[in-house]
Parts: sequence; C-alpha cells; structure tokens
Amino acid sequence: MPSMLSPVRKPILAVLLASVSLLALPGWSEPSDLEVFPAELAAAAAELRDNALVESDAYSFIASLTTEVGPRPAGSVNDRRAVAWAVERLKSYGLEVRTEPVTVPHWVRGKAAGRIVAPYPQHVELVALGGSIGTPEGGIEAEVIEVEGVDALEALEPGAVEGKIVFFNRRMDRHPQGAGYRSAVQARGSGPAKAAPLGAVAVVIRSAGTSEHRFGHTGGTRYAEGVRKIPAAALSNTDADMLEAQVASGKPVRFHLELGCRTLADEQSANVIGEIRGREKPDEIVLLAAHLDSWDLGTGAIDDGAGCGIVSEAARLIAALPRAPRRTIRVFLAANEEFGLSGARAYGELHADELINHTAAIESDLGVGKVSVLRSRVAPDRMPWVRDLERLLAPLGISHADNMPAFGGADLRPLVPARVPFFDLPQDATLYFDYHHTADDTLDKLDAEDLRQNVAAYVTLAYLLAETETDLGRAPEREAP
Amino acid sequence: MPSMLSPVRKPILAVLLASVSLLALPGWSEPSDLEVFPAELAAAAAELRDNALVESDAYSFIASLTTEVGPRPAGSVNDRRAVAWAVERLKSYGLEVRTEPVTVPHWVRGKAAGRIVAPYPQHVELVALGGSIGTPEGGIEAEVIEVEGVDALEALEPGAVEGKIVFFNRRMDRHPQGAGYRSAVQARGSGPAKAAPLGAVAVVIRSAGTSEHRFGHTGGTRYAEGVRKIPAAALSNTDADMLEAQVASGKPVRFHLELGCRTLADEQSANVIGEIRGREKPDEIVLLAAHLDSWDLGTGAIDDGAGCGIVSEAARLIAALPRAPRRTIRVFLAANEEFGLSGARAYGELHADELINHTAAIESDLGVGKVSVLRSRVAPDRMPWVRDLERLLAPLGISHADNMPAFGGADLRPLVPARVPFFDLPQDATLYFDYHHTADDTLDKLDAEDLRQNVAAYVTLAYLLAETETDLGRAPEREAP
Repeated sequence: MPSMLSPVRKPILAVLLASVSLLALPGWSEPSDLEVFPAELAAAAAELRDNALVESDAYSFIASLTTEVGPRPAGSVNDRRAVAWAVERLKSYGLEVRTEPVTVPHWVRGKAAGRIVAPYPQHVELVALGGSIGTPEGGIEAEVIEVEGVDALEALEPGAVEGKIVFFNRRMDRHPQGAGYRSAVQARGSGPAKAAPLGAVAVVIRSAGTSEHRFGHTGGTRYAEGVRKIPAAALSNTDADMLEAQVASGKPVRFHLELGCRTLADEQSANVIGEIRGREKPDEIVLLAAHLDSWDLGTGAIDDGAGCGIVSEAARLIAALPRAPRRTIRVFLAANEEFGLSGARAYGELHADELINHTAAIESDLGVGKVSVLRSRVAPDRMPWVRDLERLLAPLGISHADNMPAFGGADLRPLVPARVPFFDLPQDATLYFDYHHTADDTLDKLDAEDLRQNVAAYVTLAYLLAETETDLGRAPEREAP
Repeated sequence: MPSMLSPVRKPILAVLLASVSLLALPGWSEPSDLEVFPAELAAAAAELRDNALVESDAYSFIASLTTEVGPRPAGSVNDRRAVAWAVERLKSYGLEVRTEPVTVPHWVRGKAAGRIVAPYPQHVELVALGGSIGTPEGGIEAEVIEVEGVDALEALEPGAVEGKIVFFNRRMDRHPQGAGYRSAVQARGSGPAKAAPLGAVAVVIRSAGTSEHRFGHTGGTRYAEGVRKIPAAALSNTDADMLEAQVASGKPVRFHLELGCRTLADEQSANVIGEIRGREKPDEIVLLAAHLDSWDLGTGAIDDGAGCGIVSEAARLIAALPRAPRRTIRVFLAANEEFGLSGARAYGELHADELINHTAAIESDLGVGKVSVLRSRVAPDRMPWVRDLERLLAPLGISHADNMPAFGGADLRPLVPARVPFFDLPQDATLYFDYHHTADDTLDKLDAEDLRQNVAAYVTLAYLLAETETDLGRAPEREAP
C-alpha cells in the first residue's frame, strides 16, 4: 500500500502529528493489508482523517452554541434559539439545511430545596428529577428510610415506607465505558413509580453520577400509568454521604423537601437536518446523529453539544471536498432526546418510508473523551469491510470491539426495525458521569485535542460509509431483549 | 542511637507502617545524629509519632463536627452549637476545657442570583463575598467592564467605570504551597473598596480559587472607611469563563445581580481552650491553634475542621501518656477567624500578660494534604534544636525549609509582638484552593491516611516543644512589612 499522503503534505503532517503526540499511539502505521477498500478510497479517507486531526475545529461550534445559546431544555425559549442557531451554523458549513417540526413536552424545574431536619439539621444540595411533580408550597417533611435500590425497596416489610421519604442510596462506580450507569440509574428511572404504591410521600436518590462535587445529577424519571405521582430529587453524592451518615447514627432522620417543578403545555421544537447530497446515490443516506437539546442545569457542552459539534464538523470537512461522496450524508440534530426522545420519534414517523434507504447510522452522545473503540452491527459477511475500517482508524488508537455490537444511540431507535447497520465510536467515559446532567456540564471541561481525535474518527467513518461501493446490507435481526 | 521502639511494638509497627507505604518515603531512618535531644526525649517523641501514624483518628473528630454541627459561620446558631460540641469533645479527650467569650459580627448571606442579560442571556453561579451589602430588592443591572486586577482598574481613564459593574478577572494559579492565592485574593479583599470611589455600582470577581466546578469561592471583602459600600460577589471559575467570553465578543455586556446579604447585630461566641497542664512549668505554654468557625457554604471539613481535628488529636495522644509533659499544652480553637479574627483578638486581650509565657505556637489552617515541610521562626542559636526536630520528622517525609521563616497562622497574630517562636507544618495545598470557601468543603474530600501523617507530625512537634529542657527563647524581631 503506497503512502496515502501527498508528498507535499506528509512532512508537514509528520511535524504536526508529532506535536499532538499521536506517533506515540499504539498501532500507528499506514494500513498495508486492506482487503476491500480500493487504494484511492483508503487514501482519501486517510487524508481526511489526518487533516481532521490537526485542523478540525469542533471546539468553536460548541463554544458558540454554549456561549450564545447555553442550556436548551425541550420546550424552552432556548430550545428554539438553539434550532435557529444550528440552522445558521450548518448552512455556513455548506450543508443543505432544513428543520422538521417536533412537538415536545415542557417541564420547568422551579426552585429546589432540601434539608435534614433531624437529628442534625443540615442544608443539602439536590436537584429535581426531570418530570417530577412539585411539592405543595412550603414543601413536605417526613421520616427517611434508606434502601440501596429498587430490589431492596421491594423486599421491605409491608408498611415500612408508608408516609416516608425513600432514600435510594446506590453509589455509581467509575468505569471507562460508563458501565456503572445502568445499575445506578435504575432508581432514578423507576424509583418513584415503585415507591409510591408502597405509601412513600417522596423519593430522594443518591445521584446517578460519579461527581464528588456539590451538585446533583438530574435526568428523567418515569411515573407509571395509574400510579400516584410523588416528588423526586437527586442529592449530590456529597450530600448523599451526609444523609447516609445521619441515617447511620441510628436516630430517626427527618427530611424537608421543596420542589417547584411544573409541566406546562407542549411546545413546538424541531429536528435540524443538514445534508450533503450524494453524487451517485442521493437517496441512500448515511445518518450522523447527535441531540441538540440539553438539560437545563449546565450549558450542555458535553451532553450533547460535543456530539453535535463532532458530527457537524465531520460533515463540514466532507462538504469542503472537491466532490460530494457517492451517497447522501445527513446530519441529524435531534430535538428532545433527554425528555422522552420526541425528536427521534418524529424522525421515524416522517421518514418511515425512507428508513430502509439508510445504509448506515452513527450517533455521538457520550461526551468528549478520546475514542479508543469501534463497534459495529453489520451482517457477518460484511466484516471484511469493518476490518479495513479498523485499519484506517488504528492510527487514532482505535480498535474494533469484537465482543459487543454497536448500540447506535437513543436517537437511532427508529432505525432499529429497518435493520440499519449501526456503528459506534464511543468516547472514553471515565469522567463523563462526573458532568452528566449537572450544572458542571460546561465548555471548560472540553479538551480541544481530544475533540480533534473524535472528529478524525467520525469523518473517516462517515466518508467511507458514504463513498464505498460496498453495499453493507442490513444488520442482523436483534435478539429479543 | 538505639531503637526508639520497644521490642514488642516494633514488629507490629513494621507491618503497619509498610501497609501505609511509609517505608518508601525518602529519608526513612531512625535519627542517628541528634545534637540536642536526650535519647529518652527523642525515643518518646518517636514513639508518639509512630503510634499516631497508625492509630490516630482525627477523622472521627472532623466527621462528627461536620455531620452533627456542619457549617458554623460567626454569629450563627451553629457557631454556638460548635462551641458546645467542641467543649464536650475536648473533655472526652482528657483535656481541661473552658470557653472564653468573644463578641463576633453576624453577617448572613441570603439569596444570591446572577445572570448575563446581554448579549447572550445566561444564568451564572455566584456567591456573595463575606461582608457584602445586599442589592436593592429586585437586584441591579448594569454594563460590565472587565479588568484583570486592582492595578488595571486604577489605570483606567476617569469615568470608565461610572455606573458599571466591575468584573475582576484574575485567574488563580495552582501551586503546592498555595502561592497563587496572594495575588488572586487582592480583588476580593479590596476590589469593592477601590471600585466604588470610581463610580462602580457593584463588583463581581473571578473566584480566588482553583476549582473548575460550578460554585463560587466566598471570603471576606473589606470596605474602606468613608467609602460608599457596593455589593460584591464571586463567580465560579466556569461562569467567569462565560462572562469573559461574552465580553470578548465585543458586544456590550449587561449583568443582573441580586444579593440578599445583611449584617445583623453582634452575637456572643467563644474561643474554646483545652489544656494539658504542665507537670514542671505549668505557666509555660505551647499553643496549638486552629479555628472552629467556618464559612457557611460547605461544612468546613477542610477549613478548618481539619486543623481542629489535627491539633486536638495530637493533644489527645499526649494527654493519654502516663505523665504530662513539662510545660502546658494549650489547644486554642479560635472563634471567627474567617470574618475578622475576633477570636484571635480576644485571646490577645485576655492573655496579654501571659503572651510572654508562650514558649512556642503553631496553627493548622491549610487543609489536609500531606505535610512535607517544616518552617520555624526561632533565634539562630536555637537552630540545632530545630535540626534535631527535623531529624525526628524526616521519617514522615518532612524536611526543614531554610529559605522561609514560619508564618504562624492568622490566629497567632497576637503572639507576634511577644516574639513567640513559631513553627509551621504546612499541608500540601495543591488541591486546597479547589475547596477553600466553597460548598465543596466537605468531609468526603479528606484522606484518612494523610490525616494520620498530619497528626504524627503535629504530635511530635507539640510533645518536643512541651517536654524539651531547652529554652527556645524569643523569635527574632520581624522586619517591617
């Protein structure tokens, strides 16, 4: 395999690459054993990759979005400002841009205040869970009963939680792939719905997050049909420690909670669509997704300003090529991922007839850590294509995870029935859950070099998917969950 | 020099010490070249040191104080609860305990809210500076003018800040000895007093702290006599970035600030004094100081629950010895260090006649990092004594700083005119200013092993000062500042 870089660019790149320490990455080499990709395809992808690594600028996208718009929860004024901002931004990137209407719920947080009343009065920091009802004016006060999780709650004696505030106190483990989240988030999602029928008057949870700082992690809770709704909030991990210590004193613990949350009338928002129309197969679509909405506490730099910036910048680099790729690249910035996936549902409905024409899809929604893993969900006989892809990503320190198929991201769910091949380039999530759904999800947490590595990976993948002559077919049928 | 440990204890200690990885510290050895200390004195100090390293428990002191009392700002109900708590705690440590009345100011924070109104509306996190006046109900709104520090403010054209909110935007550098604080804190202390005569309507500062998280660092500001008072608040570093970015847009930036601070009538608090009466020279006093009050935002685990815990635990270990040391050891837990040093002043007044009998003093008020430095302020001819001390502290990884005399701590200021010899065992402050004066100053930030190392150092020093036959004399006259 000859060098993929022109003689002029190569020495410059060698210097630049050395300056970002990439030559030290394991696996750095020019791919030399490609099975499927023609040399020109690989060369063009590698050049995009290497340029992205030194020249891409997703950072300015995220800086502008978070500074000029900021938090953009579904239904808010800022939600609509974000849509307008994204339309202008993607137009300036040379994409064909449109919006597609989405009706979204509109929940507002209002005030949140919590304190331990007895045995030792203490102020605590907490945030309402998304969708929680408010408390009566003046709040509610009750005795606390602590359980680790939903299982432990359901194992209690009948009547044990009657009239009490249930404190779910499961600690989330830190993990590079965020593996601790699944069990930690259970009480957030279903705790209030499980506790209410047992007579609980409210729920407070230890935040489903790894931050050691003094703010709670919000996130949606799901009330169950026909079950009484009770107010629910997340304590900062620090304050969960405090409540745990007071419960451990053996004395009765009383807690006061006041939440001013309300659900208002639905609002109009929009999915933002930006396209590079394919030069040969314009009806075949490679979908690059992220979500434009964010929680209200931070500025949504990480969740998911980062994803929007990464996929948009990848599209910008491809749009700047002398000719469009074979297939259409479609950037899909989804409305309201956080509060019920309205944007994803609307996309699925509006594009129902076209889902089968989606030849591949990828979503970026795990922050801004470096990518070290590629996951795929393709038919087994298409794996040689994936192996070539892996070789082209290897210089970025990325290798294919053979033991786990691609997940695809929450906004890609409508594509699952159409068996669209999915790819994941998941970010290192060791720190992600320190910031996730908190006031601390802000621009200063981003590393510009990590962002360039992300864009390099996403642009390589997106370009290959749009340009390859290979038909990736349909993904294997999923097993029943 | 023979071993200082009894044959029975030594093997146990060897195992325990290995388990806390101390044998790996540079300089680990039994002192073998002491000049001044008799062998029995050194042996007794070393045994206290080594026991403290494995068995001391300042942690439970701090856990109890922060859980059962929590924040304890001067004049608050919790301030008085802390005094009562400390009296009981020190009694349980075998000390003779009393309180000495201190009149303290009583400032309350009330609500604090800030937002950028234009060009891009954003909520910002801020906290009032201690002592700030409140804004009128409904807040004030004005254009922002950014300067780095007080010098830059005073270099502006006349009229430049008239009617504006001055934004002091100096970033604090991280440093093991906290060296970045001095320049960072200047705007906090004197910024409002300097900006008001120029016509400013309020001041917001970038927090004098190194935290990258979403809360401001409070701390006292000093209005000047005869100068109009204006409200003053500290932005979290993250939000200072936001304001900086909006100012950098070149568009006029308008800011809305609302503070509910008020100064109430003075209250009664107390210094808490706990003593081990000296067996030979009870009138000679070795003072171990820390301050019992804290800011209101966190639970004061680090500032200065830690210091109170360290010096109290050192005293507890000495009180548990079969016989009291030669001189009196006095634990001094000062009232209201944070808001004007009322406790220190009251101590100086009440003990004016006795200051000359203080043979040495040390204060712990820099958190809970490991100690690696000993500083002293003694007459040059007493340095052989300090060198012996250094040899006994060397196994803890501590060496003497020859280039800088001991500072002594803010609560020791009344002892300066009496030229009391001072010693410092300053904690590593690399992380200290992440937590300092914030909501994040909480128990979970403490490392129990680091605390044991601290107690080992403080108890060694305290014991040697109280037991030595050497007269350390008076400290050198200080140069005019």
